[in-house]
Amino acid sequence: MKALVYHGPGKKSWDDVPDPKLLDPTDAVIQVDTTTICGTDLHILKGDVPAVTEGRILGHEGVGTVLEVGSAVRTVKVGDRVIISCVSSCAVCIYCRTGNPSHCLAPEGAVGLGWILGHLIDGTQAEKVRIPFADTSLYLLPEGVSDEAAVLLSDIFPTGFEIGVQYGRVKPGDTVAVVGAGPVGLSVMATAALYGAAQVIAIDLDEGRLAFAKEIGATHGVNSGDADWREQVLALTDGYGVDVAIEAVGLPATFEMCTRLVRPGGNVANVGVHGTAALLDLQRLWIQNISISMGLVNTTSLGMLLKLVANHKLPVEKFATHRFAMADMMHAYATFQDAAHTGALKVIISR
Amino acid sequence: MKALVYHGPGKKSWDDVPDPKLLDPTDAVIQVDTTTICGTDLHILKGDVPAVTEGRILGHEGVGTVLEVGSAVRTVKVGDRVIISCVSSCAVCIYCRTGNPSHCLAPEGAVGLGWILGHLIDGTQAEKVRIPFADTSLYLLPEGVSDEAAVLLSDIFPTGFEIGVQYGRVKPGDTVAVVGAGPVGLSVMATAALYGAAQVIAIDLDEGRLAFAKEIGATHGVNSGDADWREQVLALTDGYGVDVAIEAVGLPATFEMCTRLVRPGGNVANVGVHGTAALLDLQRLWIQNISISMGLVNTTSLGMLLKLVANHKLPVEKFATHRFAMADMMHAYATFQDAAHTGALKVIISR
Amino acid sequence: MKALVYHGPGKKSWDDVPDPKLLDPTDAVIQVDTTTICGTDLHILKGDVPAVTEGRILGHEGVGTVLEVGSAVRTVKVGDRVIISCVSSCAVCIYCRTGNPSHCLAPEGAVGLGWILGHLIDGTQAEKVRIPFADTSLYLLPEGVSDEAAVLLSDIFPTGFEIGVQYGRVKPGDTVAVVGAGPVGLSVMATAALYGAAQVIAIDLDEGRLAFAKEIGATHGVNSGDADWREQVLALTDGYGVDVAIEAVGLPATFEMCTRLVRPGGNVANVGVHGTAALLDLQRLWIQNISISMGLVNTTSLGMLLKLVANHKLPVEKFATHRFAMADMMHAYATFQDAAHTGALKVIISR
Amino acid sequence: MKALVYHGPGKKSWDDVPDPKLLDPTDAVIQVDTTTICGTDLHILKGDVPAVTEGRILGHEGVGTVLEVGSAVRTVKVGDRVIISCVSSCAVCIYCRTGNPSHCLAPEGAVGLGWILGHLIDGTQAEKVRIPFADTSLYLLPEGVSDEAAVLLSDIFPTGFEIGVQYGRVKPGDTVAVVGAGPVGLSVMATAALYGAAQVIAIDLDEGRLAFAKEIGATHGVNSGDADWREQVLALTDGYGVDVAIEAVGLPATFEMCTRLVRPGGNVANVGVHGTAALLDLQRLWIQNISISMGLVNTTSLGMLLKLVANHKLPVEKFATHRFAMADMMHAYATFQDAAHTGALKVIISR
Repeated sequence: MKALVYHGPGKKSWDDVPDPKLLDPTDAVIQVDTTTICGTDLHILKGDVPAVTEGRILGHEGVGTVLEVGSAVRTVKVGDRVIISCVSSCAVCIYCRTGNPSHCLAPEGAVGLGWILGHLIDGTQAEKVRIPFADTSLYLLPEGVSDEAAVLLSDIFPTGFEIGVQYGRVKPGDTVAVVGAGPVGLSVMATAALYGAAQVIAIDLDEGRLAFAKEIGATHGVNSGDADWREQVLALTDGYGVDVAIEAVGLPATFEMCTRLVRPGGNVANVGVHGTAALLDLQRLWIQNISISMGLVNTTSLGMLLKLVANHKLPVEKFATHRFAMADMMHAYATFQDAAHTGALKVIISR
Repeated sequence: MKALVYHGPGKKSWDDVPDPKLLDPTDAVIQVDTTTICGTDLHILKGDVPAVTEGRILGHEGVGTVLEVGSAVRTVKVGDRVIISCVSSCAVCIYCRTGNPSHCLAPEGAVGLGWILGHLIDGTQAEKVRIPFADTSLYLLPEGVSDEAAVLLSDIFPTGFEIGVQYGRVKPGDTVAVVGAGPVGLSVMATAALYGAAQVIAIDLDEGRLAFAKEIGATHGVNSGDADWREQVLALTDGYGVDVAIEAVGLPATFEMCTRLVRPGGNVANVGVHGTAALLDLQRLWIQNISISMGLVNTTSLGMLLKLVANHKLPVEKFATHRFAMADMMHAYATFQDAAHTGALKVIISR
Repeated sequence: MKALVYHGPGKKSWDDVPDPKLLDPTDAVIQVDTTTICGTDLHILKGDVPAVTEGRILGHEGVGTVLEVGSAVRTVKVGDRVIISCVSSCAVCIYCRTGNPSHCLAPEGAVGLGWILGHLIDGTQAEKVRIPFADTSLYLLPEGVSDEAAVLLSDIFPTGFEIGVQYGRVKPGDTVAVVGAGPVGLSVMATAALYGAAQVIAIDLDEGRLAFAKEIGATHGVNSGDADWREQVLALTDGYGVDVAIEAVGLPATFEMCTRLVRPGGNVANVGVHGTAALLDLQRLWIQNISISMGLVNTTSLGMLLKLVANHKLPVEKFATHRFAMADMMHAYATFQDAAHTGALKVIISR
Repeated sequence: MKALVYHGPGKKSWDDVPDPKLLDPTDAVIQVDTTTICGTDLHILKGDVPAVTEGRILGHEGVGTVLEVGSAVRTVKVGDRVIISCVSSCAVCIYCRTGNPSHCLAPEGAVGLGWILGHLIDGTQAEKVRIPFADTSLYLLPEGVSDEAAVLLSDIFPTGFEIGVQYGRVKPGDTVAVVGAGPVGLSVMATAALYGAAQVIAIDLDEGRLAFAKEIGATHGVNSGDADWREQVLALTDGYGVDVAIEAVGLPATFEMCTRLVRPGGNVANVGVHGTAALLDLQRLWIQNISISMGLVNTTSLGMLLKLVANHKLPVEKFATHRFAMADMMHAYATFQDAAHTGALKVIISR
């Protein structure tokens, strides 16, 4: 089959590779009908994720059709249309049982599960993919939900909702500031209404992104290039500070922006992927009664978000800005990598 | 009357001062029957809390008898025995209504409420004290609870319970590590059982404090002077890390100890008062699904803790290590300041 | 002044009565600019609420202007526009402090607070009204919120949200069935989205009400006159039953409909006012892991809902179907009492 | 092998039966080392549970040694000592994933899972037993926990804790009344401290049971044969009513006792198994802001309770009043059935 293969920092190609096979009785093999590219894939290509070795097929998002199932798989069968979760979960270990499958302990080879697709095992940017623990890592796609909508539930919508909105404990009436209007920040804004946010403030340097933010759930946009960005945000809260500040960039500076926006008693939720430490101003913050959360998505909300998508309650379709055939994978990557010019948000790559 | 007066960094004396008077219809004047000294008072004396001006009477903990009440006070009357909360609360502002009276907005002069006793207004290390918003800042002392037990509910037991145990979201079966076995850290250990902790690990450099910790609730003690302190703690959790790590010292190093002890999905609760920033290893922690909390006590648990004390469910009495008459206030301070030699935990100063 | 006075079962009139006066330093006197009529007022008129004595001015909802404040009132001043909460709260007693001001213990005369307006003390269907504990029973009306929108926050929107949506623990993705599409049932439907309900099923005998339900938040309507009403509801949940079933009528039969609609592990929230006992099928339900809640509104959500109204997030205006001048109070009552023909939902009565 | 077989209402015998075999790759076969008898077994013997057919081996509690595992079992192996959960769980269906495995949908034959042992499939009062979905229905027994302690975690301690204490939302400082001091009611009392109850009031007709209650966690005993039992309970709460009232008998009268003991804003948790409907006084209760919960145990707390037992934090051993060899099964039943004279609480039956 064909697949997008990582060949070391800066190198990738659309290669002929062997088809995946069932390795364990809990596995399934899926024909990938639709996949997409994540910012994390670009980090891998820069060489920032050393656990990814040369020869690895990238990709952890996808929608597909079941081709083959192991003898212990009970809930999906050949021919079923499914969403692939970016997190593989055994359902049995202490982390899976307590809502943290992103730290699943079940051994896949020697590695444990969690986020392993396109990371520690071959991923979804391919014509086929093997999925471990199929019963708890795949979700049946109901009639009437398009591939293009569903593929947003593999990773980014659960990430924005779980790590941003739920960890940030958004509650009805809250004012929520989201620093960073990339795909994940936008997915925070698009799901903040699920807990009744009254105001959702998008903060970004890009006016185009701010405009798009208002289409999918933000009530206000603030350009962080403005000298008075903080005053603009505080003015929307009568000076108190926001109830929840959500970091969706991954830099010390944007993290610190959040601790300067939150009101006493509020929450900071970090969604961004960080490469360096940040300063935590405990001399100022210890007395502020705030909490700070962070983490990798568990996708435990995937089934619930799917119900909302089936009921047309989430603006998933708007996130798809470009469409490609799978054979144009390299072109899709080029478009996504040059998002500053192409305006790409999510590129949809279909069979 | 007599009172302990701050005269600038390093200077204090037991002075003759004017009696306090009612200023507002919501005030009460209390005869102080029992007070004590807090680590924060020592910080003030070092000059670390510049908001405290010369001439201020120190102290924010106390038990006393109502001498006089303003016309709008409804729930306490002359002669009632009361516990004084270290936090003054108006009950009406948005922070008081949402459980954060430590950020009370009601103006007391120009200052707002919250922790103001012995800080922004005169405090409890005196023969008498004026208490603003008496209805929501005083608690009636039931029969059978001693002053010496009750004075621990002014600040340290609520602090340990609210900012340590509740903010740390301790739940039944948890393993809780507490870094720092001073009065507040010990109050965390003494209240962790209220949410069913299975193991409570005291971590400190002082073997005497570790031994005492086991008397009031800790199940294990680990000396942080040991090179393998971290391994000792992890061994008690099968290597996973603790469910909740609680900082009760107030230094960057002890804060970082906590982020190195907590398991994925666990919580770090900061109780210590910090003077400098700490490094937050986001490059390591962003993927750990942890939360970090911090704050000033609200004393919203004071009434509840009082019920437990009245039912003999909390080891408050054990915290009182030394007793003084009020006229010996300077001696009490000397004893508390030299805790390393005297072993003082809480010094009880009574009329 | 003029007021709507109850003269015993079936009797009321628009009378000349003495103006209200301040009785306590915590009181305010309000000029009523807008009021409305509640189903409870009709119950009183039938004689179903014996605590209401002859001569009582009815009404517990209103928006007005502050005419006079007692000496202890701090947060509202003469000339302020305010919403009157249907629940009067002292903020200090154990019930007020723990989120249940509907059971406030503070004595107003000999009666306690909670719902007392138009019940145990004179109410809002008058040109002026005395409000006890003004600081915690009135809410400042921000610019840009109309009286007609605001008056819905005195009682029915908080009731639907707190007793229906919050007590029913609605969560994102849930299917919620609401039995009864009267004003309060509709306010449940209009606020269920604040916790992300995926499906909101209105159940009523009146097709007009079902059509209106869909305008303000319901996703489906089921006519309970249909023989297969239960099957219609279950079909929307793949046969499992609804996550939350909410009773908004007040009859044993509609309560039992709810226990027959809820899935294992789900919740039944009773919002209706009941006059007789219902059968609870414990032999069938004990094994179903359900919870059943009920209660009188606390209006603790009033301030939060007001933020949402100010941000145009709630369809409050649509509830106002008829408008009257205050002098037409008797006509307004006639219209509301004959809702079956007039289609009245909320009649808005303004100065 | 030998097993206790049900032969229709009133009939049972200790029979020779065929050994159990693995049927599915997710099964295990366990040698039963210790089992016990539950009140539910007596209900079955009376014919009250018609789903139990003649020939069924009874028993749903047990501790044993793994003899054989299916090919898909990953977490237990031959020779492991395990606790058998009374609830069998697939871990994958919507109920298992959302914390309600007592309503597990996974087909076992045509029946679904949940409580099926000694009910819809053969149970644990036998020398060997087949356990479906071994990975999520068995718990490894750590060193140092006795069989006799562990067997109490199969059912009654999780039942008391989950359905009584957790569903009743007991919180620190609460006063909890438990109506019924049988094994399950006592397990509620023994676990109420895990959420910091200040007072635990045992209510029963039997003075011996009330005395025992105080040994394992109750702070007060009230004899429900006293004419003033209700006044005695209310006196312990200053007349307000208890925060949580827990039904552990299974009769309409005891259920109604609970609704008459609970304070406004409190909770009633039904733990008892009911055979008939009860009256719910909605005309009195609708305004009380209470919640009422009920359900079958999920045993999701089993692993956590096991940690507490391993740390000597629960008085499990005290529940074992009589011990028998497995060959004396009929004698064990006779002793348990005549508890009124024998004082039997839990009879321990060991290999």
